[in-house]
Amino acid sequence: MRENERVTMKIVLDAMGSDNAPMVEVDGAIQAVSEFGHDVVLVGNEARIKQEMEKHGFSSEKLIIKHASEVIEMYDPAAISVRRKRDSSIVVGLDLLKKGQADAFVSAGNTGAVVCAASLSLRLLPGIERPGIAIVIPTLKGSSVIIDVGANITPKAIHLLQYGIMADAFSRYMLGKSDPTVGLLNVGEEESKGTEFIREVHTLLNESKLNFAGNIEGRDVYAGKVDIILCDGFVGNVILKISESIADTIMKSLRQEIKADFLATIGAVLSSGAFNELKKKMDYSERGGVPLLGVDGICIISHGSSNAKAIKNAVRAAAEFVEKDVNKHIVEELESY
Amino acid sequence: MRENERVTMKIVLDAMGSDNAPMVEVDGAIQAVSEFGHDVVLVGNEARIKQEMEKHGFSSEKLIIKHASEVIEMYDPAAISVRRKRDSSIVVGLDLLKKGQADAFVSAGNTGAVVCAASLSLRLLPGIERPGIAIVIPTLKGSSVIIDVGANITPKAIHLLQYGIMADAFSRYMLGKSDPTVGLLNVGEEESKGTEFIREVHTLLNESKLNFAGNIEGRDVYAGKVDIILCDGFVGNVILKISESIADTIMKSLRQEIKADFLATIGAVLSSGAFNELKKKMDYSERGGVPLLGVDGICIISHGSSNAKAIKNAVRAAAEFVEKDVNKHIVEELESY
Repeated sequence: MRENERVTMKIVLDAMGSDNAPMVEVDGAIQAVSEFGHDVVLVGNEARIKQEMEKHGFSSEKLIIKHASEVIEMYDPAAISVRRKRDSSIVVGLDLLKKGQADAFVSAGNTGAVVCAASLSLRLLPGIERPGIAIVIPTLKGSSVIIDVGANITPKAIHLLQYGIMADAFSRYMLGKSDPTVGLLNVGEEESKGTEFIREVHTLLNESKLNFAGNIEGRDVYAGKVDIILCDGFVGNVILKISESIADTIMKSLRQEIKADFLATIGAVLSSGAFNELKKKMDYSERGGVPLLGVDGICIISHGSSNAKAIKNAVRAAAEFVEKDVNKHIVEELESY
Repeated sequence: MRENERVTMKIVLDAMGSDNAPMVEVDGAIQAVSEFGHDVVLVGNEARIKQEMEKHGFSSEKLIIKHASEVIEMYDPAAISVRRKRDSSIVVGLDLLKKGQADAFVSAGNTGAVVCAASLSLRLLPGIERPGIAIVIPTLKGSSVIIDVGANITPKAIHLLQYGIMADAFSRYMLGKSDPTVGLLNVGEEESKGTEFIREVHTLLNESKLNFAGNIEGRDVYAGKVDIILCDGFVGNVILKISESIADTIMKSLRQEIKADFLATIGAVLSSGAFNELKKKMDYSERGGVPLLGVDGICIISHGSSNAKAIKNAVRAAAEFVEKDVNKHIVEELESY
């Protein structure tokens, strides 16, 4: 654990991760250095990173390059590529964190590979058997956390209890919620509903110290019925991706409808402020990245299609995570079990 | 199978199913009789149904009451209540269909109970091991079918192949698609991705005669990448309910934003036509109900929160299903395997 009083963080950024790497990573890193004053270590192909930096005419001792000759591609199988590509930006970057030479790691690369490499390199927090990816979603009541959205697609019941404990600490210390409620995503509210796996999780949660509110249904997620939504990584991944796409579909449909109507076009111009506000609320690049909870270190995962703003915000999220010492609180909570 | 040339259908309607039963059912039945000219058999508490009918001052020999003394409630366990409540509206209504006294059955009641009672009473189509609920969703390219959205939360791989075949016939004969593409909902596009169950389904679909387009991700669902989306009933149920809620959240948020801005308010008034068009597109009551595919008879399931319009449209959907002889085409397609 790093000390709280540290103001300047050193964040390791996988420069080769996103679909537009290293362009957006370098751009985002420059913005993060300029706006937040953190040190950023760009890990990846040195020549290509320098080329991008020259475009910006930016140079600062706070922006450090660490060369890595290999790249784990999006289509690479996670476990195999982590073992074989020892000089990849993901493996080299996490190694810096493991050695204590940095405070956090950010990557917009192959999520499976990041989960695998982080678990192997940083190891897991004591009491955690599997890491989980947590996302914060906007709801009608504010925001909620969904865990897991894809780190672990075939979890055991006990893993979901562990996710609940981690999300509880995350909600308290990152989101400032005092006694977050936990809901188990199911096909019905009744305790008898769902698969054997879900009923087993239900029993574990009932017996836990978490503020368990019982089963919730799909419709409760965005209504904000609970603060923490627990599900397996398969269901969570589908929800995450469908949520992004459905918002997009609605906005596109609305624009289609509006274009079809002249009076409405005038209306749309006048109300474009509202559109933009909503877009901002739904925009994942505003948050930048999501934490991989359960590994013994701070690891933030960004979207493959991240832009520079998303990368900048992921660096900010990483720094905030370090500052709030979430992992320490997770361990404390786990120890009470 | 009924004959195609029949114009007037007899539709059995569970009068006790919805959250506002029998009020909305009677209202919807009257609208269906008036608009479509079908005969509707209202099954349920005769006194309460008559009371509702009197409010409308409507009487027609096309609106028939069949008394049933019991009601399977939303919270009743499906299998047990179907066995115990032999005089419930669901069991009595399906019995009329089984005896050939009607063409189709519609219920907004306990979905699990309808699935269970329909499977027991009507039996399954030859070659089908489990029924599945199919929904039609609006996409950026038109519409797609998702199956299963909750009839079968722990399917075997072979069930998803059967769902694919049924949805193929449904898409051809109900939606008029010539060679519908089939996608398997997964956490990634690559064949190696997903759980063991998903990989097993992938193999079966690859070997099938279906127009299999491979794995799709959550983001592809509303983009309209494929015509048919296959998933287990747990995932499908979560998607269905989250889709409803997310659309609602976005519309509410947009209205909140618009209210916050005076200029935008003027704009919103002008563009309200666009809002209404979109709302109609997203509105499940426009479709009324969704088919339970795989049972040997036409069974349409409506939302518990259905209004009269949804009930009316469910009756229309049931009649259309009979007319298009979808079950005959499903059996033909299955026989070719």
